[in-house]
Amino acid sequence: MSRLWNRRVAGLEPYVPGEQPKARDLLKLNTNELPYGPSPRALAALRESCTDTLRLYPDPTSLALRETIGHAYDVTPDRVFVGNGSDEVLAHAFRGLFRDDAPALFADVTYGFYPVYCGLFDQPFETIPLGEDFRIDVRAYDRPCGGIAIANPNANTGIALPVAELAWLARARPDSTLIVDEAYVDFGADSAIRLTRDHDNVLVVQTLSKSRALAGLRVGYAIGHPDLIEGLTRVKDSFNSYPLDRLAQIGAAAAIADSAWLAETTGRVIATREALVRALAQRGFQVLPSCANFILMRHATHSAASLQLRLRERDIIVRRLGMPRIADWLRLTIGTDRDSDRLLAALDDIRVN
Amino acid sequence: MSRLWNRRVAGLEPYVPGEQPKARDLLKLNTNELPYGPSPRALAALRESCTDTLRLYPDPTSLALRETIGHAYDVTPDRVFVGNGSDEVLAHAFRGLFRDDAPALFADVTYGFYPVYCGLFDQPFETIPLGEDFRIDVRAYDRPCGGIAIANPNANTGIALPVAELAWLARARPDSTLIVDEAYVDFGADSAIRLTRDHDNVLVVQTLSKSRALAGLRVGYAIGHPDLIEGLTRVKDSFNSYPLDRLAQIGAAAAIADSAWLAETTGRVIATREALVRALAQRGFQVLPSCANFILMRHATHSAASLQLRLRERDIIVRRLGMPRIADWLRLTIGTDRDSDRLLAALDDIRVN
Repeated sequence: MSRLWNRRVAGLEPYVPGEQPKARDLLKLNTNELPYGPSPRALAALRESCTDTLRLYPDPTSLALRETIGHAYDVTPDRVFVGNGSDEVLAHAFRGLFRDDAPALFADVTYGFYPVYCGLFDQPFETIPLGEDFRIDVRAYDRPCGGIAIANPNANTGIALPVAELAWLARARPDSTLIVDEAYVDFGADSAIRLTRDHDNVLVVQTLSKSRALAGLRVGYAIGHPDLIEGLTRVKDSFNSYPLDRLAQIGAAAAIADSAWLAETTGRVIATREALVRALAQRGFQVLPSCANFILMRHATHSAASLQLRLRERDIIVRRLGMPRIADWLRLTIGTDRDSDRLLAALDDIRVN
Repeated sequence: MSRLWNRRVAGLEPYVPGEQPKARDLLKLNTNELPYGPSPRALAALRESCTDTLRLYPDPTSLALRETIGHAYDVTPDRVFVGNGSDEVLAHAFRGLFRDDAPALFADVTYGFYPVYCGLFDQPFETIPLGEDFRIDVRAYDRPCGGIAIANPNANTGIALPVAELAWLARARPDSTLIVDEAYVDFGADSAIRLTRDHDNVLVVQTLSKSRALAGLRVGYAIGHPDLIEGLTRVKDSFNSYPLDRLAQIGAAAAIADSAWLAETTGRVIATREALVRALAQRGFQVLPSCANFILMRHATHSAASLQLRLRERDIIVRRLGMPRIADWLRLTIGTDRDSDRLLAALDDIRVN
């Protein structure tokens, strides 16, 4: 605490990301990174761009990248916004597209950054409890509010909503921005991007950090009606003209363009996930049905805290989230089949069965 | 305008950066980029880092980069904050270290982003007119305020203040954060970093976009008392955990470590600047005394608007700023000696003399 902090900073409760350990032989199943390297085309494009042109500012509008994203999702570039990771995109959306005369709504178990943004921006909010089965009931969000954020598949549970339910909610609350945070959508869920054609209040946010294996490059994007995109752009241009550096713009565009790589790699993750879920069920774990590259699970007799500790002793990092409802659950990133074998061997060593 | 923008967005007046033209044969003297490519060591480090490790999130604390910066400026890493360009660093400083119960103070002619941040953050501000000679008089800033931002050398004029005057101001207003924005300091001015040892209210902000020739990489940093750095970190961790991607962290560290490259390159820019200033004076230009990699100038008989247009017709872009006091001045980035020759030939062609 310092006398030079203003009242706003003193009251913040910052987001705490998953540990980024520096040791190399750890099996890192805590931050939902892909176990495979990114598209080789993206890496080649990046290497070719490490030249003297880095002396020049990047395109502040990231037009070429927005065109590539637009091409991939069949929308025009004026419907695409890009930012320094989907975290920055979400921050600008909370800042610019939510009204602060009513509470923003999001689930009690979801991405932990949502309440943090609200703290930073003096945005009131209310959390809506998930059902007993950890599912979102969109009817609970149909009330006066400053805006709605739904992660789909939901962060931390992995459970996906049908797009038809999101469409229902968008229609029910036409004067509230509905953010659909699709960080994990490529691992088996259905995207709401097509809703953005007929619903000018739906903003779909995606990231290159998960399915595109570029967490280290920090690129996210939003797709929505041009008026929403213009609002985001106004906030961005009042904060940082050039949030995406030259390399990030070029590498991201090459990654987005490589749709064959995406299909193959996400297919592999899905297959690994389904096999791992079966093996964990055989060992007495309850696993929520996941459409993401992670699973949320708990064991009938072993506590999450004890399991996390004992896995860490065996050089495997998994994550326990701070939210009360899931305090006794572990979140586990899907790795390779070999990672699954290592995890299962560790669980057998701990005598979890 | 959209019904889904909130009142805050509707009232913003975003910053407009200098044009980033896509044509290649233009002589671009409008955004103060270095005419030389970045340190070859930085480029080599970047190329080597375009690997599968990009699948992993970067270090959210950027510790290795902060250690390198600390080593270069003889401060500990807890006195160093890094961000996505000095624009982001400045935004967080305005957001977290200025009090909104009193106006922030900055010059009427200075970096155009300062009032924009205030608009985004509901921060009241007052501008303090430069003197007739375009100099900053620090005594005018010695009054109750929410915080002070001084660019040194000053943006758009290039004129530098002695560090002793900043020290006087830091002592006079010990309970206000004094941001010293040193984007251009390496081109001949004296840094206030040493003041941060004895003045816990001084935050020095620098960038890799100018003297390090890495505008395309988007890295800036701040040096100050650990309490100020912690305040910035709290804001950052409530906005975006990982603002610097893996490549930016690695490339920036390699660039900062290459001090020989910095000395040689900035020396060349200074020599080019001094020769160009003499040649322009011979052609009837009044040029402000610059310690930056740009100059602000006007001609006795040719208007800035006309000169800008006629230079543009000759494929040379220079910048006219929107501020009333300098409406009839041109800001011109220092390029290579050859760029100066091309500029002078164009002026001769326009018959400026």
